[in-house]
Amino acid sequence: MSTRKMSVAIVGATGIAGQQFIDALRDHPWFQITALAASARSAGKSYGEALRDAKTGAVRWWCADAPPPEVARLPVAAGSDFDAASVDIVFSAIESEPARELEPRWAKLRPVFSTASAYRYEEDVPLLIPGVNLGHAPLLRAQKEHRGWKGFVAPIPNCTTTGLAIALAPLHAAFGVEKVAMTSMQGISGAGRSPGVVALDILDNVIPYIPGEEEKVAKETAKILGTLGRGAIDPAALVVSATCTRAAVLEGHTETVSVSLARACTPEAAADAMRDYRGGIEDLPSAPRHMLTVHDDPFRPQPRLDRDAQGGMTTSVGRLRTDALWANGLRFVLVSHNTKFGAAKGAVLLAEALHRDGYF
Amino acid sequence: MSTRKMSVAIVGATGIAGQQFIDALRDHPWFQITALAASARSAGKSYGEALRDAKTGAVRWWCADAPPPEVARLPVAAGSDFDAASVDIVFSAIESEPARELEPRWAKLRPVFSTASAYRYEEDVPLLIPGVNLGHAPLLRAQKEHRGWKGFVAPIPNCTTTGLAIALAPLHAAFGVEKVAMTSMQGISGAGRSPGVVALDILDNVIPYIPGEEEKVAKETAKILGTLGRGAIDPAALVVSATCTRAAVLEGHTETVSVSLARACTPEAAADAMRDYRGGIEDLPSAPRHMLTVHDDPFRPQPRLDRDAQGGMTTSVGRLRTDALWANGLRFVLVSHNTKFGAAKGAVLLAEALHRDGYF
Amino acid sequence: MSTRKMSVAIVGATGIAGQQFIDALRDHPWFQITALAASARSAGKSYGEALRDAKTGAVRWWCADAPPPEVARLPVAAGSDFDAASVDIVFSAIESEPARELEPRWAKLRPVFSTASAYRYEEDVPLLIPGVNLGHAPLLRAQKEHRGWKGFVAPIPNCTTTGLAIALAPLHAAFGVEKVAMTSMQGISGAGRSPGVVALDILDNVIPYIPGEEEKVAKETAKILGTLGRGAIDPAALVVSATCTRAAVLEGHTETVSVSLARACTPEAAADAMRDYRGGIEDLPSAPRHMLTVHDDPFRPQPRLDRDAQGGMTTSVGRLRTDALWANGLRFVLVSHNTKFGAAKGAVLLAEALHRDGYF
Amino acid sequence: MSTRKMSVAIVGATGIAGQQFIDALRDHPWFQITALAASARSAGKSYGEALRDAKTGAVRWWCADAPPPEVARLPVAAGSDFDAASVDIVFSAIESEPARELEPRWAKLRPVFSTASAYRYEEDVPLLIPGVNLGHAPLLRAQKEHRGWKGFVAPIPNCTTTGLAIALAPLHAAFGVEKVAMTSMQGISGAGRSPGVVALDILDNVIPYIPGEEEKVAKETAKILGTLGRGAIDPAALVVSATCTRAAVLEGHTETVSVSLARACTPEAAADAMRDYRGGIEDLPSAPRHMLTVHDDPFRPQPRLDRDAQGGMTTSVGRLRTDALWANGLRFVLVSHNTKFGAAKGAVLLAEALHRDGYF
Repeated sequence: MSTRKMSVAIVGATGIAGQQFIDALRDHPWFQITALAASARSAGKSYGEALRDAKTGAVRWWCADAPPPEVARLPVAAGSDFDAASVDIVFSAIESEPARELEPRWAKLRPVFSTASAYRYEEDVPLLIPGVNLGHAPLLRAQKEHRGWKGFVAPIPNCTTTGLAIALAPLHAAFGVEKVAMTSMQGISGAGRSPGVVALDILDNVIPYIPGEEEKVAKETAKILGTLGRGAIDPAALVVSATCTRAAVLEGHTETVSVSLARACTPEAAADAMRDYRGGIEDLPSAPRHMLTVHDDPFRPQPRLDRDAQGGMTTSVGRLRTDALWANGLRFVLVSHNTKFGAAKGAVLLAEALHRDGYF
Repeated sequence: MSTRKMSVAIVGATGIAGQQFIDALRDHPWFQITALAASARSAGKSYGEALRDAKTGAVRWWCADAPPPEVARLPVAAGSDFDAASVDIVFSAIESEPARELEPRWAKLRPVFSTASAYRYEEDVPLLIPGVNLGHAPLLRAQKEHRGWKGFVAPIPNCTTTGLAIALAPLHAAFGVEKVAMTSMQGISGAGRSPGVVALDILDNVIPYIPGEEEKVAKETAKILGTLGRGAIDPAALVVSATCTRAAVLEGHTETVSVSLARACTPEAAADAMRDYRGGIEDLPSAPRHMLTVHDDPFRPQPRLDRDAQGGMTTSVGRLRTDALWANGLRFVLVSHNTKFGAAKGAVLLAEALHRDGYF
Repeated sequence: MSTRKMSVAIVGATGIAGQQFIDALRDHPWFQITALAASARSAGKSYGEALRDAKTGAVRWWCADAPPPEVARLPVAAGSDFDAASVDIVFSAIESEPARELEPRWAKLRPVFSTASAYRYEEDVPLLIPGVNLGHAPLLRAQKEHRGWKGFVAPIPNCTTTGLAIALAPLHAAFGVEKVAMTSMQGISGAGRSPGVVALDILDNVIPYIPGEEEKVAKETAKILGTLGRGAIDPAALVVSATCTRAAVLEGHTETVSVSLARACTPEAAADAMRDYRGGIEDLPSAPRHMLTVHDDPFRPQPRLDRDAQGGMTTSVGRLRTDALWANGLRFVLVSHNTKFGAAKGAVLLAEALHRDGYF
Repeated sequence: MSTRKMSVAIVGATGIAGQQFIDALRDHPWFQITALAASARSAGKSYGEALRDAKTGAVRWWCADAPPPEVARLPVAAGSDFDAASVDIVFSAIESEPARELEPRWAKLRPVFSTASAYRYEEDVPLLIPGVNLGHAPLLRAQKEHRGWKGFVAPIPNCTTTGLAIALAPLHAAFGVEKVAMTSMQGISGAGRSPGVVALDILDNVIPYIPGEEEKVAKETAKILGTLGRGAIDPAALVVSATCTRAAVLEGHTETVSVSLARACTPEAAADAMRDYRGGIEDLPSAPRHMLTVHDDPFRPQPRLDRDAQGGMTTSVGRLRTDALWANGLRFVLVSHNTKFGAAKGAVLLAEALHRDGYF
């Protein structure tokens, strides 16, 4: 590791996801934010100013601690003008539509870590979760070669996929996951950038539909748990049937999961497999102590109590029990922090892993 | 129907469930509340006084409209002293433990309709949902004979079972339900009598466990969809795997349901079966216009918007789609009002049906 | 009253305030919706179609009951093209900026009842609350004459002012209100049209500032409780010091009020004055039975329990007690329904009153 | 400071307030928990076991982090049997009624720091807030002498008083506070021990009354801002008129405050006085960096964003502006953490201050 920190840009810096990148990089030992970009409306302002609502004067900032003063002073460029050559790494927190056009432009020069879905399903793009499928990372080399880029695009999965894939990974390795019925109760901070969920819609309510979410979870889980083939990932042969709902919860996605396994697995064996699961990322600055935390108290995990465990980077599991629906059935509940491991901090962890492993 | 109304007692009248009986019987065309009973602490007071918290002076009343003045003036007896001979019908809203002892005492003389679970699983006790399985009602005659009672005990199912059984009924009739994976997000009013869910536990949270609930749903659904045999119900041969959670919703249970059917069924065919479903109860005062309301808008049903539809007596269904988990798979979301059809008003509807059909 | 209903247009029909007009006019005995207008984006669609979110397919409708089918079928015009001559009455639910330009255009021909603040503070515009200050209505005749209009603009007050002015009216008449300290905890439905309060801002929170609100409350209360002079309202000589906050409440504004009176007034006398208060509007279709409902239970009023009392048209008051801050001090808490009497239904009631009194 | 830590007992250890003591003493540099007491029901169990609900198995623990393992292993005594001689300091988190009897028993031997109100209003008992009125502490010596105790009882104020008194202190010193109109919107965690606020009461609601709270705030504020006389505190000559309400907020009390001052004070001068306010406690382990944090953003303070600032130990103020109600009027909004400075952590800070100053 060099003594100089690597310079980092955050594009889409003023939205919720962008703010979470700033939070995730606070006092980072390896990376330092040196450039910020956002919509044209913010361009030319300092970051602190750009956060201020022009009409009401309110500062639109959703993380617990205020942005570091040295970041608040940085000038904001227009995302469309941003020059990736000015930094070592680009973190992209923009919407999928602009991502489709802009991220390749940056990836020609630099590694791009993105929360957008634009490139998740491309053949030469792995969908990496540190600790789960870093074995897919060599596909990035194929991507660079194939596209003639110096950098690459490394998207992270949908925040609802992340916790599920992490919980399934040790089960898949040991017992073979064949079918998954999942219902999510998702926190409102995951509803994207602006304006997000309207209060009048969610207070005293559940919204039973999140457009596109269920398809993403199904497709991404199979890709993440798949195997690296020639220039592409062979998805795992599993069916994921998801119903994704929005709950009156600020942060944290809760998922009830029912799994049909290839081989018999007691709840105790599942708990052991989860507790023993090591992702080979213990040495990384943003890594949790444990990929998975298994609770015995049947009232856990709960999003408010468990989302922040280990810096929002562990996936909490509870209520492990057999499921009579299937020959080798297992049921459980998980809570995953959608804006920590499931978004910015997960992307930072991925950058840490790929930097450690020499991908840039 | 006689011109004189039948006289009705509510036992457990001061709790949430008891209050809902008072609300459900407001201006009832057939039944009139003439007696109230509750814990010894309330005995001797008027009902209005009994609702008042001794320490703070607060009136503990949770329904939208205040109790009718003529009910507020009624004296409250101690439940253990209550004489069932003084009324035509007993509605019991007491806890299961006292119900086990007290309900038979009343049933010796009068029909007892109960929200308690004490007798739900007895062989000679049907678990009736008007519009779904009134064909099981003749078992009440066997019960009377077998126990030497003039009355009977007719418990209603758990509030989480009710909406599920109603939604499954037309599917089971037409396509044969074999397996059900269900996740509930339950309103807090269903958490029973006193004190119910503590605010500090549920705000900005989901609680992933409700003790005993999942077993009840599995057992009760099979019994309700079963067939009347000799002196007992033969449960339907279906597996229900439920995960029951509590959400920050005042009233209304939302359930995501995945069903494996014996015969192929398109979402359209399922919607038609649900829309066409008639329970033969249209003539009853508390009946909904439709047992099931099917939404096309994928953002429905929502508990806050749909729980009160048709007086809280219709079960709202949406997001009907195929489910790749099974050969003949179907998925949907339902919302059911846990304290209307799922509790007191459902028990009143059952009393109406059994009275119409000559059971008392 | 003629047997034919008067024809009514709602401009700004797709927003929250517009939807509330549709709800307030459901089965109205005098008025019938025959025209709808909204933004250019909705123009040319049926109302039902215009409510549908183009991207997600969701129906954006926030009232309890769906719009009447005959209204859902009406075509929507662009607000800027709307021809007031096509109806008898215009209800305007548009933002203040366009209201400034458009409302006079319509008022040239027809009476315009508006929830916008654009004309509230004009000299020749009364700020009318039926039951409180209909004596100011003759100023509308001066307005017509002065501006050479066939119709007029009659704005209703800010929703936070309405409940306060109603509660103060009988006190002011009997005891003279001199100073008012008020803190509001306002429901989120009052935050205007689109998108309203963001869930991430209000869940588990209080927002201590609503831009412009406090000044409106102070100015409007003095105008409403003032006296009709020559071609203008002489505002009442009272100081209103308000702090307006947003609470995690769907609907209903709660206000704590401390009043300094000119003459001594016991809490009992205040309660009597409030209970006896008659506004001379009892005969109108949208009027409450009582302008004010006074609670003895110190835990009332509560927004969730009391906002819907008497169709959301009564102002509920409780906790009446002396206030040691002032020589003749009185304190109380009130709850007022911000989107019923405080918005559309209040405007409909005003139209009823002015129609009854021959203003159009 | 000795190298050995002082030994500490928490009585009432299983309730919310008791748990907060355990949280406040986590890794404390001076104090170490060596004894725990609670109700007879918990006696004989380990603390970890005592937290477990006997019926459901749920662990009833409300703080963010689990209790330290060494505390979870401590045995729990019955409060009525607890022997104060076994420790150096007693922290009491019991209800007021038992406190009246038990706290003197412990104070005979040891200093008792209490969140109960039982002794707050006794003549020889100061009501201390570190940083505000430690000058009243000598009254404790009079108390010991007068009562013949080796220890003393030092209660902390009501959680709603604390933030108000801290915000008023610099204003009172510089400009003279004469009248205060205050409305609180209090978090639910302040509602005491068990079961606290019921979810059905507070979701989508405001409760306008908290029994006894307003009187406490008025009396305690005058006592805290008073002066030490002979063997008693002479209360400050100020009138506090409070309306205390409960809001759907987990933690943090928000208060809107209107103040009449003896001498003119601009908002800027008030902000300066608050920012410059030093309480002489900067060296204590639990002290905040600043007693008061003043916000310029008019949308601050907000309970969710500001309650945890500086470990929940700073009082956040915003919206400072003149108040036309009074000749020298000032208005503002404050947020104070009711279970940090307002409860256990405030009591620990008080113990730190009195230990530093040689009171034990």
